[in-house]
Amino acid sequence: MADSANCDLKSLSPLQLFERVTEQGEKVRALKAGKAPKDEIDAAVRMLLSLKLSYKTTTGQDYQAGLPPRDLVLINNGTTKEEDEDFVDPWTVQTSNAKGVDYDKLIVRFGSSKIDTDLINRIERAIGQKPHRFLRRGIFFSHRDMDQILDAYENKKSFYLYTGRGPSSQAMHVGHLIPFIFTKWLQEVFDVPLVIQLTDDEKYLWKDLTTEKAYEYARENAKDIIACGFDINKTFIFSDLDYLGTSTGFYKNIVKVQKHVTFNQVKGIFGFTDSDCIGKISFPAIQAAPSFSSSFPQIFNGKDNIQCLIPCAIDQDPYFRMTRDVAPRIGQPKPALLHSVFFPALQGAQTKMSASDPNSSIFLTDTPKQIKTKINKHAFSGGRDTIEEHRKYGGNCDVDVSFMYLTFFLEDDDRLEQLKQAYTSGELLTGELKKVLIETLQPLIAAHQERRKQVTDEMVKQFMTPRKLAFEF
Amino acid sequence: MADSANCDLKSLSPLQLFERVTEQGEKVRALKAGKAPKDEIDAAVRMLLSLKLSYKTTTGQDYQAGLPPRDLVLINNGTTKEEDEDFVDPWTVQTSNAKGVDYDKLIVRFGSSKIDTDLINRIERAIGQKPHRFLRRGIFFSHRDMDQILDAYENKKSFYLYTGRGPSSQAMHVGHLIPFIFTKWLQEVFDVPLVIQLTDDEKYLWKDLTTEKAYEYARENAKDIIACGFDINKTFIFSDLDYLGTSTGFYKNIVKVQKHVTFNQVKGIFGFTDSDCIGKISFPAIQAAPSFSSSFPQIFNGKDNIQCLIPCAIDQDPYFRMTRDVAPRIGQPKPALLHSVFFPALQGAQTKMSASDPNSSIFLTDTPKQIKTKINKHAFSGGRDTIEEHRKYGGNCDVDVSFMYLTFFLEDDDRLEQLKQAYTSGELLTGELKKVLIETLQPLIAAHQERRKQVTDEMVKQFMTPRKLAFEF
Repeated sequence: MADSANCDLKSLSPLQLFERVTEQGEKVRALKAGKAPKDEIDAAVRMLLSLKLSYKTTTGQDYQAGLPPRDLVLINNGTTKEEDEDFVDPWTVQTSNAKGVDYDKLIVRFGSSKIDTDLINRIERAIGQKPHRFLRRGIFFSHRDMDQILDAYENKKSFYLYTGRGPSSQAMHVGHLIPFIFTKWLQEVFDVPLVIQLTDDEKYLWKDLTTEKAYEYARENAKDIIACGFDINKTFIFSDLDYLGTSTGFYKNIVKVQKHVTFNQVKGIFGFTDSDCIGKISFPAIQAAPSFSSSFPQIFNGKDNIQCLIPCAIDQDPYFRMTRDVAPRIGQPKPALLHSVFFPALQGAQTKMSASDPNSSIFLTDTPKQIKTKINKHAFSGGRDTIEEHRKYGGNCDVDVSFMYLTFFLEDDDRLEQLKQAYTSGELLTGELKKVLIETLQPLIAAHQERRKQVTDEMVKQFMTPRKLAFEF
Repeated sequence: MADSANCDLKSLSPLQLFERVTEQGEKVRALKAGKAPKDEIDAAVRMLLSLKLSYKTTTGQDYQAGLPPRDLVLINNGTTKEEDEDFVDPWTVQTSNAKGVDYDKLIVRFGSSKIDTDLINRIERAIGQKPHRFLRRGIFFSHRDMDQILDAYENKKSFYLYTGRGPSSQAMHVGHLIPFIFTKWLQEVFDVPLVIQLTDDEKYLWKDLTTEKAYEYARENAKDIIACGFDINKTFIFSDLDYLGTSTGFYKNIVKVQKHVTFNQVKGIFGFTDSDCIGKISFPAIQAAPSFSSSFPQIFNGKDNIQCLIPCAIDQDPYFRMTRDVAPRIGQPKPALLHSVFFPALQGAQTKMSASDPNSSIFLTDTPKQIKTKINKHAFSGGRDTIEEHRKYGGNCDVDVSFMYLTFFLEDDDRLEQLKQAYTSGELLTGELKKVLIETLQPLIAAHQERRKQVTDEMVKQFMTPRKLAFEF
């Protein structure tokens, strides 16, 4: 349930509430600017979210900075103040909206296409089975050229999958699994090769790490990825630090991309500055290059025209917008993309789950007890302040993190719908919803841990050895 | 001899001459700005040089823009107008001085050390033989930490040599041989491993070339390099496009350098701009990385502390100043350097010989007849306008390109001194001096061509295969 410190809010007028939200927003900014303790900032943010929720309940409108409530109807014509714009790049996801990033707006801003019912139906026809829950529920919500991939598939032309991970610490969290769970499903239903890039060089460049440590993280993370159940005969996992020195095709594609992208462009796309190291500035080419089949001559028999499909979180799209811009200029096909939403932090969908903040994350190494404690203690609730109010007005699934997580992990569509209705009507309490989530996640994570234990160093070595896969090209 | 169009110059006063030089300088700038035909610009530059020579002969001072002759004695206190500053970076060498770049000033600007008599004597003692003519004659004139290399050598600690070449076209010119001739001598007298980098990736990035073409040039150039007589058991030649994908150590060092150099730094060092591609911006790290022995684990048995000595033309120093700045921060020894002067263009020492201007260059593929024609037609002369004047006043070896070339290629010190005296006294005419050069170069180039014919594709492949060399580490 929401913080109890604002029980008196219901007596405030819309304008008074507006002023309280504005004050609290300033307090949060001041705490962040003053690098206040994490706990203190978190508490202030929780209070802010709670105030905004009250504001919305009272006025029927989202709080907008600088727009007092009496003006809202007149001015709220679809334009958004800069302060309220979602911020999304490969390193930061931030929104002031408790429901999370406005993904429809992001589709317009990024120039991608919505995964609509027509496309989902077409996928269903092509593969002859029910689409993955991530597609059914809009978790993978945006795409580029997925229709081309389906054209190719229907014409018996092969393609391959490419996804990746930046191995920044040994422990992966459940959010990290999303692209891998979905990619595994894609690999199974389409039966195509898969390459998984571990950008240990990126982590070396961005973090205070040695190359050895970054490579060690890559190998440790590979175990968690392998534990998702990828087929060793169809999957190649590689660390950049390792593979770049063992591939005859990878560096050639990197330098080709690097020739066709200027500093001005990466400055515009990624926000690099003159003070950034030249490694960061040239790195986007290293994430781009696996989009081209000639980076893997051992898999594609030297062919450079095999189309690539990249499932990834939408924050990685800037890399691939750049890649798609360069592709025709270096005589390569543009990669297609499937974009997922972010996996929300326990504290709320204003930002994504981050391994560097243990309180925001459920790790794949967490015990059942840790999972239970974290959800009970930190998962932001869309419930009401008191049981009485909750029964009366019902909870808000749009901002409730436990419910969001269930949309990711609960396979049963009917059960999910029942939970939504029961929570919204007030029949189901926050504690009960959390219990469902805990009981869903505990066995999933325990099973993952069990599979991970089976992953030997020898298996990691095999997955990471450049080799031919079980496909002819 | 100098251009005959200025035979009337001797009747002019110093001030009139000053004005003629200034006018001609403006004409050259206008022609260059208007992208006039190469021939027209060359003719105007020759006239300008000739005018400057006359000015100097008359006034006893170098022409300085904006400083009319009557002020010269008062103002010429060692400061130089910007316009007269030598311009030296890895892509451009330009000076207004017919004697060539002021290398003493360059040593001060670059912060390197002069190779003085003491150092040459120490080298002679260390190796127990006469130092190479390039050392005796100041062609290798500057160094960094050469004393440390000698310390190591005297203490029986090994080091290795690293030099390189950017393979921009199939034909190499005689100037390209200078670092290789000297490196071969160093390899012989010190008996150490040698690595030779062919930066085909650089050429791909800078020129309108495919990666395939750049790699082909690299292999063709390797033949000319091998023809210099390097020991296959002690020498590893590598193309970046090729070796980067086959070395477990090279990329790791590249990314380490890339982490420790900012865009601001490469902007300052190399003059890159925001419009440059990210490949150019990150390239300096690729030229830096072979300075570290861990880039060649196959040669150095994985050791990362073997000191490196780099013989190169001074225009490559910016790369290695950067490398030496980074080295301690990534736990590697700083490479030592030996710097050579530039090999002058046939038209004069204002710029270096350039393969992209065939008239400025004597190629290693030129026939005896072509060599003769080029020298007779294009080699800038320090001789007088008429035979009578030449006999009376003598020629100027400081600006005479034929004499400069002889200092590079004529082994016999006594003969060189005789030629200098005879030319300076007017006893030897320009045509006679050119004849000596032609007779020196023709057999050298013919012998090179003969050795090059012996270089098979199989030998190139062997030299370019990563492998252990004939040294234990």
